[in-house]
Amino acid sequence: MKVIKFGGSSLASGKQLEKVLKIVTADPERKVVVVSAPGKRYAEDIKVTDLLIECAEYSLQNQDPKEKLESVLERYAAIAEELLLPDGVIREIHDDLVTRIASDKSKPDRFIDLLKASGEDNNAKLVAAYFQSRGVEAHYVDPKEAGLLVSDEPGNAQALPEAFERLYSLNKRSGILIFPGFFGYSESGEVFTFSRSGSDITGSILANALKADLYENFTDVDAVYSVNPSIVKSPKEIKELTYREMRELSYAGFTVLHDEALVPAFRAGIPVNIKNTNNPSAPGTLIVNQRDNTNGPVIGIASDKGFCSIYVSKYLMNREIGFGRKLLGVLEDYGLSYEHTPSGIDDVSVILRENQLDEKVMDAVINRIKNELHADEVKVAHSLALIMVVGEGMRQNVGTMARASKALANASVNIEMINQGSSEVSMMFGVKEVDEKRAVQALYEEFFVPVTV
Amino acid sequence: MKVIKFGGSSLASGKQLEKVLKIVTADPERKVVVVSAPGKRYAEDIKVTDLLIECAEYSLQNQDPKEKLESVLERYAAIAEELLLPDGVIREIHDDLVTRIASDKSKPDRFIDLLKASGEDNNAKLVAAYFQSRGVEAHYVDPKEAGLLVSDEPGNAQALPEAFERLYSLNKRSGILIFPGFFGYSESGEVFTFSRSGSDITGSILANALKADLYENFTDVDAVYSVNPSIVKSPKEIKELTYREMRELSYAGFTVLHDEALVPAFRAGIPVNIKNTNNPSAPGTLIVNQRDNTNGPVIGIASDKGFCSIYVSKYLMNREIGFGRKLLGVLEDYGLSYEHTPSGIDDVSVILRENQLDEKVMDAVINRIKNELHADEVKVAHSLALIMVVGEGMRQNVGTMARASKALANASVNIEMINQGSSEVSMMFGVKEVDEKRAVQALYEEFFVPVTV
Repeated sequence: MKVIKFGGSSLASGKQLEKVLKIVTADPERKVVVVSAPGKRYAEDIKVTDLLIECAEYSLQNQDPKEKLESVLERYAAIAEELLLPDGVIREIHDDLVTRIASDKSKPDRFIDLLKASGEDNNAKLVAAYFQSRGVEAHYVDPKEAGLLVSDEPGNAQALPEAFERLYSLNKRSGILIFPGFFGYSESGEVFTFSRSGSDITGSILANALKADLYENFTDVDAVYSVNPSIVKSPKEIKELTYREMRELSYAGFTVLHDEALVPAFRAGIPVNIKNTNNPSAPGTLIVNQRDNTNGPVIGIASDKGFCSIYVSKYLMNREIGFGRKLLGVLEDYGLSYEHTPSGIDDVSVILRENQLDEKVMDAVINRIKNELHADEVKVAHSLALIMVVGEGMRQNVGTMARASKALANASVNIEMINQGSSEVSMMFGVKEVDEKRAVQALYEEFFVPVTV
Repeated sequence: MKVIKFGGSSLASGKQLEKVLKIVTADPERKVVVVSAPGKRYAEDIKVTDLLIECAEYSLQNQDPKEKLESVLERYAAIAEELLLPDGVIREIHDDLVTRIASDKSKPDRFIDLLKASGEDNNAKLVAAYFQSRGVEAHYVDPKEAGLLVSDEPGNAQALPEAFERLYSLNKRSGILIFPGFFGYSESGEVFTFSRSGSDITGSILANALKADLYENFTDVDAVYSVNPSIVKSPKEIKELTYREMRELSYAGFTVLHDEALVPAFRAGIPVNIKNTNNPSAPGTLIVNQRDNTNGPVIGIASDKGFCSIYVSKYLMNREIGFGRKLLGVLEDYGLSYEHTPSGIDDVSVILRENQLDEKVMDAVINRIKNELHADEVKVAHSLALIMVVGEGMRQNVGTMARASKALANASVNIEMINQGSSEVSMMFGVKEVDEKRAVQALYEEFFVPVTV
């Protein structure tokens, strides 16, 4: 049995829904279909979820959300019209939205969650109606009745352990089950959404709970690329990668899959297949527990800007038990999460995302490090980029670092920092932001472009 | 004005003392002479300090220390005889030792310190008597009367701030001042020794306090070598290196100078010259604040065995604020100091010296990490060696890492870990202990041996 999830762009129009129907019915194993809200039809289009957020905000500010509500309804109506669906389904969606807008606003976060969730919920009803209209046995599934219990954290709900047991009984139902993504219900019966891109999470939870053989995740790219296509033109596609590789890549800039979404599938060891709704015959990318190492040591290169480093030096720091713990404690007091802590004998640097701190917080942090830890010197470097070179194959490969650092040297990129040795499937380079593109290109050339002699 | 310190092997026999006299009187700037206790005359010889420790232990166990005491006295007597010194000085040393042995034993640590310190103290008297016998104006200086005030930590005393002001007045004294190394006096007038090799510390304190122009440290090697001579035959000598370089090198295996010893000289910016008593015309190695970068990017390579790593992985660790701080807190609870913490996205490794923990402590640490931090996996790797590649020149050098990692790859050394980026003057490689020698040799070849085309 397969759980199959479609992203917003795969459900943006009647034409897209026709592809979805074809894909689902092409394989009798495709039993549970998780749907997002209708996404963009063209670059300037607005996603239904974004329209719903505006709708909620208007209502909370006591403005009339009627116009926004109309835009949402129009999106569903356009699809229904294109597919010649009976009127009933649009009337049902209209009534649902009116009820939601009229509901309790005393807890704004929860009200926003209730509105946002309607995007997926109503789309699931629409998709079920469409499948039925084509003579396919399909049923909308209400997550409440199915037992998708979640914690009561608005915008960041977590599935509760009981949810998995309850959802398992969906296996007994007949026909194709159309399940709305992105949200669940708390024990008191209220709607709470997952974090953004949460339909991936719903699919992953269902794959785990129903003990699926495969979780197919349909989006609008043929595969996960080995490197960002905006940096390297038409990069190599990745056929197969492990969870660990995916996680390391998704850390820095790879946004095909929301990395938290993988957790439930990962825990149950269920493979995930990233595929393209617009080109379903392409094999896509398979994410697995273990893979044969057929290609070179490196499977992908990811990079991200916007990091800074706080350098702290103190003579004989190395002898001072507790120094590192105290330093991290200062950061924690300001709610700052850090990425890495490369260290010398008498110095340590903390690398963190720059957007976490403004100048005021930075000054406060520096002052505390100077005064409480008696550091000799504290200095900050801005505008760093981190580059992850990822691959299970580098575990056994003696010369990978030599190749990578040689490629960077040849491209005149100064390596500000290297972090290698804890994860066996990645090495990280810190470079100046201005060097990021050149560095990634040089690494791609080294590991992916065959040498022509 | 120069402060000049002689190590134990430079003071082991009359013949050695003749060299010392020649060196001191060859330069009128050599005003303050710090002496160690007599060291080894030949490989199997026993240092006076070690004899004194045995002496103290016998006394504490109520055994008769007479024989041990005789051995100590014999060492001084042999020197006095060789140099035809008057009997008085040996009688004075004898009486001093008898008094020390008869003193209070209720605090064993302090009693041991009192005995140990006599090695230097009596040697300073002997050297002063010898200088005087040759018509040189020389005076033994009593550290108590000179004001070398220290904290009351047996075997690990620290100079108190007042000491520096008091010692400054030594500048007014005439003649050559013979100052015993290794110990000072607490405010209550008791003897406390510095950590081992503490005569270097005394010299460094005096250089700082007296505002010397140079601190000459005489030992038995011509210079600091660029690499351990037991790993590479006749390695290149280092002419000049910075304090930072020295500290990074002394961290892993370079034992020419006790690294803490440099602190007072470092703070005052006083250059330190490592020279050879047996070959005083050799220029030795000069340790400075800043140096011209005349040679390649690398000035020295040091390595040390006996490290282990604790690998901790947890899915989404990266998102968990406080994880690193809690992990280091667990180590601190067991008094463990760590060297480095390379990290991946969902994992972190802690590198520490293996001799700090037995199996019981290791098990306790692992259990706490598993149970309190809910780690997915914790595993330990033993028998690691750390290699430091050090040089101010690598700061501006784009290709140093490429050269180093290429050399290691060519020698089939797998790099277990790299830590680079906080200190600008070093990069660290972690390798398996069995690969240490081969790795150091390969790095030496790369950075120090000219390529013959």
